[in-house]
Amino acid sequence: MTARTNRQWILTARPQGDAFEDCLAWREQPVPEPGPDQVLVRTIYLSMDPSNRIWMQQASYIPAVPLGEPMWGVILGEVVESRNPRFRPGDLVTGMGAWADYCLSDGKGLGPVPRIPGLPLQAFTGVLGPTGLTAYFGLYDIGRPQPGETVVVTAAAGAVGSMVGQFAKLRGCRAVGICGSDEKARWLVEELGFDAALNYRGGPAELRRGLKAACPSGIDVYFENVGGWISEVAYGFLNLRARIPLCGLISQYNAAEPQPGPRNMDILLVRRCRMEGFIVLDYMDRAGEMLREVGPWLADGRLKWKVDVDHGLETAPRSLRKLFSGGNTGKLVVQVGEEPAA
Amino acid sequence: MTARTNRQWILTARPQGDAFEDCLAWREQPVPEPGPDQVLVRTIYLSMDPSNRIWMQQASYIPAVPLGEPMWGVILGEVVESRNPRFRPGDLVTGMGAWADYCLSDGKGLGPVPRIPGLPLQAFTGVLGPTGLTAYFGLYDIGRPQPGETVVVTAAAGAVGSMVGQFAKLRGCRAVGICGSDEKARWLVEELGFDAALNYRGGPAELRRGLKAACPSGIDVYFENVGGWISEVAYGFLNLRARIPLCGLISQYNAAEPQPGPRNMDILLVRRCRMEGFIVLDYMDRAGEMLREVGPWLADGRLKWKVDVDHGLETAPRSLRKLFSGGNTGKLVVQVGEEPAA
Repeated sequence: MTARTNRQWILTARPQGDAFEDCLAWREQPVPEPGPDQVLVRTIYLSMDPSNRIWMQQASYIPAVPLGEPMWGVILGEVVESRNPRFRPGDLVTGMGAWADYCLSDGKGLGPVPRIPGLPLQAFTGVLGPTGLTAYFGLYDIGRPQPGETVVVTAAAGAVGSMVGQFAKLRGCRAVGICGSDEKARWLVEELGFDAALNYRGGPAELRRGLKAACPSGIDVYFENVGGWISEVAYGFLNLRARIPLCGLISQYNAAEPQPGPRNMDILLVRRCRMEGFIVLDYMDRAGEMLREVGPWLADGRLKWKVDVDHGLETAPRSLRKLFSGGNTGKLVVQVGEEPAA
Repeated sequence: MTARTNRQWILTARPQGDAFEDCLAWREQPVPEPGPDQVLVRTIYLSMDPSNRIWMQQASYIPAVPLGEPMWGVILGEVVESRNPRFRPGDLVTGMGAWADYCLSDGKGLGPVPRIPGLPLQAFTGVLGPTGLTAYFGLYDIGRPQPGETVVVTAAAGAVGSMVGQFAKLRGCRAVGICGSDEKARWLVEELGFDAALNYRGGPAELRRGLKAACPSGIDVYFENVGGWISEVAYGFLNLRARIPLCGLISQYNAAEPQPGPRNMDILLVRRCRMEGFIVLDYMDRAGEMLREVGPWLADGRLKWKVDVDHGLETAPRSLRKLFSGGNTGKLVVQVGEEPAA
């Protein structure tokens, strides 16, 4: 805590198309003082999420980041000063913060991070953070897989996808992942226990052949993280009354023009499928429910998780890029500051 | 019943694009004899449905019509000969039949049509037939509108749409229809009691302005009959947790190439919407449930219905065309034979 300077990434323009890095500018300012009811949080980990890209561009389930302000992100940090009775210096917290060394918060979007012996703090950026909640409730609450059913997840080697497939297995389903490299596919099958994993980079015809072999009984839950042509191919395998939790459409976030939906939506009609959008914010108050089931899986090693760490706030825009180019495996974070001693 | 000849429309090819009439050929054959357990049905009314176009082309929730066979359709007819113990000559029946004067059935797809004093037989082709069931269960079971919510329905002057809007009103909702002419829009508002109706032919910008004025509280249920750009405009008004019963995509059935889905499916995610396909066949065994609620509405005139009748089997292909060109209002049927004396 010797830094008197607060380094920040400022959003300077709304990105048009792919080049979102150009819309972020580095700025150094004095560390701010907390006002009444505010806390000052020192960033330890900055979560890299596809939603960062959305927040740069437009209002969604939250407003867009205002131009001229620090970029928003989910952070894990340490309270260093507090004028809010809920928080004390030294508390570890997670929630909405800024792409900065420090940020102020009124505490409303912050939750406590417990110290659990043997569990690295990084677990709270992924499996026990928003992405874990997203996977858990998106699959179980929206997807409602039954034992023996087939669950297909896209962006399967990502933070959410890698959990979805494992959660599917842990409830007795067949889990099939779609990902962007053979190496990721091997990781999903050999390390995480997916029944099959397919590299989509061979194109639609190859993916179709792959799904046909990997899903001999069709698809009962298609966990949507990607959109575009991959969805169109997968729709062809949907079973009667299949469910599609609509979690993300990452193939479209960097497009300069809005991208069309799948050309075979008639399948949703004919096969009586249900597609449903959801946002993790709606499930924050049910985190305890997840922890009760997932805790033991973490403790005995049945549930595996991986955090891909980039180092230094200055890498954040390049790090975010990886989500769109397929450059990460597991949960991607930027380490901005040191973890406090346990 | 003097006809010894069975006039029929035969499907000769799978339609490519718009010109489905070219795939139907007129044929005259002797009236067939029923085999064991079969009935011979004389067609009175032939229902014109968008699904006819699908059945010409491809397997869906039922197989495609085989080439060289009579075109399939929903009929209302009279049993003229029976070797099936469930049916007697003179029984009125409805269900899957053929575009023909007569067809054979094993009785499995046929249900009885009761004679109700004061209720024209034509009611069983629309409001009390499959289209009424479609509107009833699609809206109430899939759409689940609550009193005070706003329901928007496309193809609103059609057989299903005109019922959906009235069912919405009868459960205390605001009903807004989208249709293809000013005359239809007037009919929806002035005769059927819709709160507003919009003619989509002015294009996307005009429809957007119209919806903005007609749906000041947004859209809670978007009953989908059409697809394409109309849906894309409507999605912009979807409220948090809106429901989209996916009933039809008529804008796409005549397209030579599969048509892309809406370019703003991210709205379904961000606003946590639910889209769900359904098929009326799944609700056939719940028809009694509908009759109990709808019967009194019909009896006291609160629920209005209209049947648009074309005359003569030879008009069937031209009649079907009307569904796609916006040429009908209400339920479209072809009268093939005379109603029996009551």
